Amino acid sequence: MIGYPNKKKISTTHSVSDNYTRRGMSLEKDLNDSNAYYADCDRALIHKKPTPIQVVKVDYPARNSAKITEAYYKTPSTTDYNGIYRGRAVDFEAKETKSKTSFPFKSIHKHQIEHLRKVLYHKGIGFFIIRFTSYGQTFLIDAGIIIRMWDEGKTSITYQEVQQCGSLIKESLTPRLRYLDNVDAIYFKEEESYGKES
Amino acid sequence: MIGYPNKKKISTTHSVSDNYTRRGMSLEKDLNDSNAYYADCDRALIHKKPTPIQVVKVDYPARNSAKITEAYYKTPSTTDYNGIYRGRAVDFEAKETKSKTSFPFKSIHKHQIEHLRKVLYHKGIGFFIIRFTSYGQTFLIDAGIIIRMWDEGKTSITYQEVQQCGSLIKESLTPRLRYLDNVDAIYFKEEESYGKES
Repeated sequence: MIGYPNKKKISTTHSVSDNYTRRGMSLEKDLNDSNAYYADCDRALIHKKPTPIQVVKVDYPARNSAKITEAYYKTPSTTDYNGIYRGRAVDFEAKETKSKTSFPFKSIHKHQIEHLRKVLYHKGIGFFIIRFTSYGQTFLIDAGIIIRMWDEGKTSITYQEVQQCGSLIKESLTPRLRYLDNVDAIYFKEEESYGKES
Repeated sequence: MIGYPNKKKISTTHSVSDNYTRRGMSLEKDLNDSNAYYADCDRALIHKKPTPIQVVKVDYPARNSAKITEAYYKTPSTTDYNGIYRGRAVDFEAKETKSKTSFPFKSIHKHQIEHLRKVLYHKGIGFFIIRFTSYGQTFLIDAGIIIRMWDEGKTSITYQEVQQCGSLIKESLTPRLRYLDNVDAIYFKEEESYGKES
C-alpha cells in the first residue's frame, strides 16, 4: 500500500441525509416543506400551529390595516404540529439538538408533555421528531417512550436510546423528510400486514 | 279579564340560552371555556389555534426577554379550532353574525373552505359553529353542507336553512356550549345506537 501523506482526506461516506441537512435548512423549514408536499398530494393534512403571541398594543394607521406595536411571545401550551393522517389525529413536537450524546428534556415544556399524554389518551398518534444536527440525522420517536422516561425523572434520552427506540427518517428532495413512511411503519403496521396478506 | 295598563311587560319566555348569551360573552370565550372543561374531564382535546402573526421587528431589551415592536395579523390558512374527540380528528371554524335572516359567507376565507374540504377528504370531522347573536342561538352545521352551497355559488345560508340542516347547541354553566353532544348525535349516531342495542 502506498501512502499519500500530503493528500487531503476525502470523505467518501457522505450519505444522502448528510447532503441535505448540510444545506443549512432548519428542521422547521424541512417539516413545513414536507407538510406542504403531503397536503398537495392529498396524503395528509398536517400544519404547524402559529407561535402564540400576546398582543398588547395595536395601531390603526388606516382603515382595515392594523399594526401591532407591542407584543410578547407566549409559552406554547400545546405541541407545534398537528393534523390528520389516514383518518387519525396526528400531533407532534419537533426539536433539534447540537449534542452528540443525548437529547436533553429541558427543551420540552411540561405542558407539551401533558398535552401529548392527552393525545395518546384520546387515541391520537403522538410523537417527537428529534434531529441530531451533528450527525445530520432526524428520528421519529413515539411520545409514550419520552413520557415514560420523563415520568421516571430522567432529564434526557441518549443518542443510542433514540437509535434503538426511535426510527430514522429518510430524506429526499420532495418531501425533504419522509416522516409519514415512519408513521406508516410504527402506527399502521398491522393494517399494512393485513393488506399484504389479503 | 282585567287589564293592567300601567304594568310593565314582563317576559316569561326567557330561555336558558338567552340568559347565558345575554351576559355578553363572545363565542370565542364560550368555546375556549367549553374546551377547557372538556379537556379537564378528559372528554376531548380541542384547542383554538393562536392567531397567525407576521413578526417584523423584535427588540431584546434583556437576555431571555423579547419584545415584538412591529408585527401584522396574517390571514389564517386553516380553521381556528382543532383537536381529537373519540379517536377522530375534529376541525371547525366558529363565526358570529348579527343578521336575523342569514349567515353571510363573506366572513369565511376561501382557504378555510379548502382546508375543511381536505379535513373531510382525510376522514376528519369538520363543521362550522354559527351563532346568531340576535336570537342568542348557536348552531353546529356540517362543513360538507356549507362547502356544497359555496361550490354552488351561494353567498349565504339563511337562518331557516341553518335551523333545518344544522343542530342547535344546548348551553349550560359548564360547559357553556355543550357542542360535543351535537357531535355525538351527528357523527357517532350509528355507534350510539349499536351501544344501546347491545
